[in-house]
Amino acid sequence: MTSNLSAVLDRIDADLDASLERLFEFLRIPSVSTDPAHREHCRLAADHVAESLAGIGFATSVRQTAGHPLVLGTTGNGSGPRVLFYGHYDVQPVDPLELWDSPPFEPRIATLAGGRKIIVARGACDDKGQVMTFVEACRAFHAVNGSLPLPVTILIEGEEECGSKNLPPFVQTSSTELKADLALVCDTNMWDARTPAITTSLRGLVYEEVKITAANRDLHSGLFGGAAQNPIRVLTRILGAIHDDNGRITIPGFYDGVAELPPDVRRQWEGLGLTAEGFLGQVGLNVPAGEKDRLLIEQIFSRPTCDVNGIVGGYTGEGSKTVISSEASAKVSFRLVVAQDPDKVREAFRAFVRARLPADCTAEFINHAGAPALALDWGMPALGAARRALTEEWGREAALIGCGASIPIVADFKRLLGMDTLLVGFGLDDDRIHSPNEKYDLTSFHKGIRSWARVLAALAE
Amino acid sequence: MTSNLSAVLDRIDADLDASLERLFEFLRIPSVSTDPAHREHCRLAADHVAESLAGIGFATSVRQTAGHPLVLGTTGNGSGPRVLFYGHYDVQPVDPLELWDSPPFEPRIATLAGGRKIIVARGACDDKGQVMTFVEACRAFHAVNGSLPLPVTILIEGEEECGSKNLPPFVQTSSTELKADLALVCDTNMWDARTPAITTSLRGLVYEEVKITAANRDLHSGLFGGAAQNPIRVLTRILGAIHDDNGRITIPGFYDGVAELPPDVRRQWEGLGLTAEGFLGQVGLNVPAGEKDRLLIEQIFSRPTCDVNGIVGGYTGEGSKTVISSEASAKVSFRLVVAQDPDKVREAFRAFVRARLPADCTAEFINHAGAPALALDWGMPALGAARRALTEEWGREAALIGCGASIPIVADFKRLLGMDTLLVGFGLDDDRIHSPNEKYDLTSFHKGIRSWARVLAALAE
Repeated sequence: MTSNLSAVLDRIDADLDASLERLFEFLRIPSVSTDPAHREHCRLAADHVAESLAGIGFATSVRQTAGHPLVLGTTGNGSGPRVLFYGHYDVQPVDPLELWDSPPFEPRIATLAGGRKIIVARGACDDKGQVMTFVEACRAFHAVNGSLPLPVTILIEGEEECGSKNLPPFVQTSSTELKADLALVCDTNMWDARTPAITTSLRGLVYEEVKITAANRDLHSGLFGGAAQNPIRVLTRILGAIHDDNGRITIPGFYDGVAELPPDVRRQWEGLGLTAEGFLGQVGLNVPAGEKDRLLIEQIFSRPTCDVNGIVGGYTGEGSKTVISSEASAKVSFRLVVAQDPDKVREAFRAFVRARLPADCTAEFINHAGAPALALDWGMPALGAARRALTEEWGREAALIGCGASIPIVADFKRLLGMDTLLVGFGLDDDRIHSPNEKYDLTSFHKGIRSWARVLAALAE
Repeated sequence: MTSNLSAVLDRIDADLDASLERLFEFLRIPSVSTDPAHREHCRLAADHVAESLAGIGFATSVRQTAGHPLVLGTTGNGSGPRVLFYGHYDVQPVDPLELWDSPPFEPRIATLAGGRKIIVARGACDDKGQVMTFVEACRAFHAVNGSLPLPVTILIEGEEECGSKNLPPFVQTSSTELKADLALVCDTNMWDARTPAITTSLRGLVYEEVKITAANRDLHSGLFGGAAQNPIRVLTRILGAIHDDNGRITIPGFYDGVAELPPDVRRQWEGLGLTAEGFLGQVGLNVPAGEKDRLLIEQIFSRPTCDVNGIVGGYTGEGSKTVISSEASAKVSFRLVVAQDPDKVREAFRAFVRARLPADCTAEFINHAGAPALALDWGMPALGAARRALTEEWGREAALIGCGASIPIVADFKRLLGMDTLLVGFGLDDDRIHSPNEKYDLTSFHKGIRSWARVLAALAE
């Protein structure tokens, strides 16, 4: 540890109460992006962020979009590797309000049984608390040294909770301003309350809607039943054939290029000891439902999947109706891993459906989304540096984990700016993001700030 | 033909214009039973029927129910076999009104290309026109002979189009009044415009709803996909397994007791020459979808079936949502044939589902309906007599056909009064019942009246 970093960490510890008060100020702004009634609050939140950054040496601006504004801050000259930090100031709606134990925009510290202190408020974790870990780390460097250890750009958007639809166009048109050597995102979780983590892979996504049509009108199932094609029967037969008895996907070519885990990753993941009880027990399940010959952690991090996300056809109201519907449809999504081509997977699914269509049936498809998987090279120097920094702060080796979901901005950074992203976050599985009584552990906040200080110092070396 | 019947038929021919005017009066009453705004019109229709019957020698009464009133008329003394005629005075709603070529309650005669004359109005066929064929036949007998050839009870209800829920209790409590040797119903179709028909079998019904539940909440398909059970996947896999590649139902025991067609029935049905083009072409289909080794006419008349009538689960709105739903449900119905026990079929289905439930999933069932199939003995004398009468009127052998649907009142007559029902009707497949521009062929009406005169005379012999 450089003596300089040591001073920065001391400053963080000494300034914690003030850091908390600044977070609380941010949390008091009800910046619910999806609700037009909160439009002005989103504006206020953007201004608040811009002022905070200006106060610690960033050249800041609030940028208009077709929706809520973005905040851009930049500091440091052109020398050395530059990092781009991304976060968001907007939060989820608070409904159902009656399930909150205290008003969602009146942040407070509470103490859990066992002594854990938590910050309770909407946005405490997602993403205001996480964003502020980075901002407060920068503040400490600025206070101690008058500058940051490396050039930093900060991009904070206000539409993450409602689709970020204005972000990719901004990234594209502002690519010169935004281009950096590495992106940093603080919107993910630790492995557990003691183990820091860097998310090094994200699954990709293919999301399709399929509609099967048969007769030109709804039919009476008594008069036509037995003779007329039933689109629900056809659809269930097709969807029911996507998985075999071992949970493996039967679509020809689906697994093309999907590799086995490298031994070092497998070893590390096995060491994390993810159990069905721990992971599935929280949602009332007990038995992993994926490919039978795979570790649970593989099933969610590194294996591709298929889920039917929605299905509808025929009569779905109360009681009964003896109808053969003229159509039925389903929303079907595939999580992809590195080497799977979204377009090929989409075409393979469509071919699978078409090959099973009986006479008199047609299938229509809607492409709702397609994005490839992403994965960092585990040998990347910046990853190693960040991992060592986190390990030092937490006294426990930082885990390199996957995330089963997609994070679109990470794909956009890669696609539009050719830039890799380090996903480092301090959230915990029990933070209740998007739910009533959202919280962020005080330890996540405090050691999160210290972690970013260490990571920035390490990346600057 | 007895000379007496000959006089009655002459009277029918001579009185046709007046018969039509009486039908038109009936059709002008907008007795839409499902719409509370038409409550008084239903009452008017009941009174109208009661007055008509009183005018031709019936002792009539209008009976209150919890819903719309019933009309009961009776004539003849206790001697000889008694028939109970059932029909309904209520009609379907007329929406969408803009698709009618003329106001639905202003009946008119129109002439189709080719010269066919039709009566156009809501209820022209279903069931006012059909009911009046029977009433006008009685009127002719009354005019010529002062009496009917056999004792007749007429029961006309006003809730057939909205579920008939007050009818079975009335039949039960009035069993002494209603008991007859045979029931007659005029609410079915001819085989085609030239071929009269008697419907001698009705399929039964088992209607089940099944709900599959897995996790205790909806899950993110990125974070949990691959590890969490997906109830839609489970449901589609189960429903997709109900039929084999030949369209045969795979539920163990489902076909227990199901017999092959008797050779005489099979011969007659083959002779009817039902084609896929003729039957399925009208609804945009071409290829029978039932058991591959069965005649189309078997598929719809005499083979049991399974149809999924509705299915829903997960996200079904516009666009996409990456969710694994905690539940999915389907409405599943079975059409039964004689010898299938509804309770056994229901239990076999439930066992089929339960046997395919993976870990972490539960299934709940709702029993929406259950009724056995019905079939007349083809050797029944009354059936033979009615068949000969129809054959004589139309100059073409009356077909004995099945109906794939259930007609609950027929099952109620059998169950509550131990009484068989002859289903004789003069509707045609293109009558557009329940749709805009409902019609009834003038020939159906005229020869329908003559047919009933012949049938009543034949049953009296």
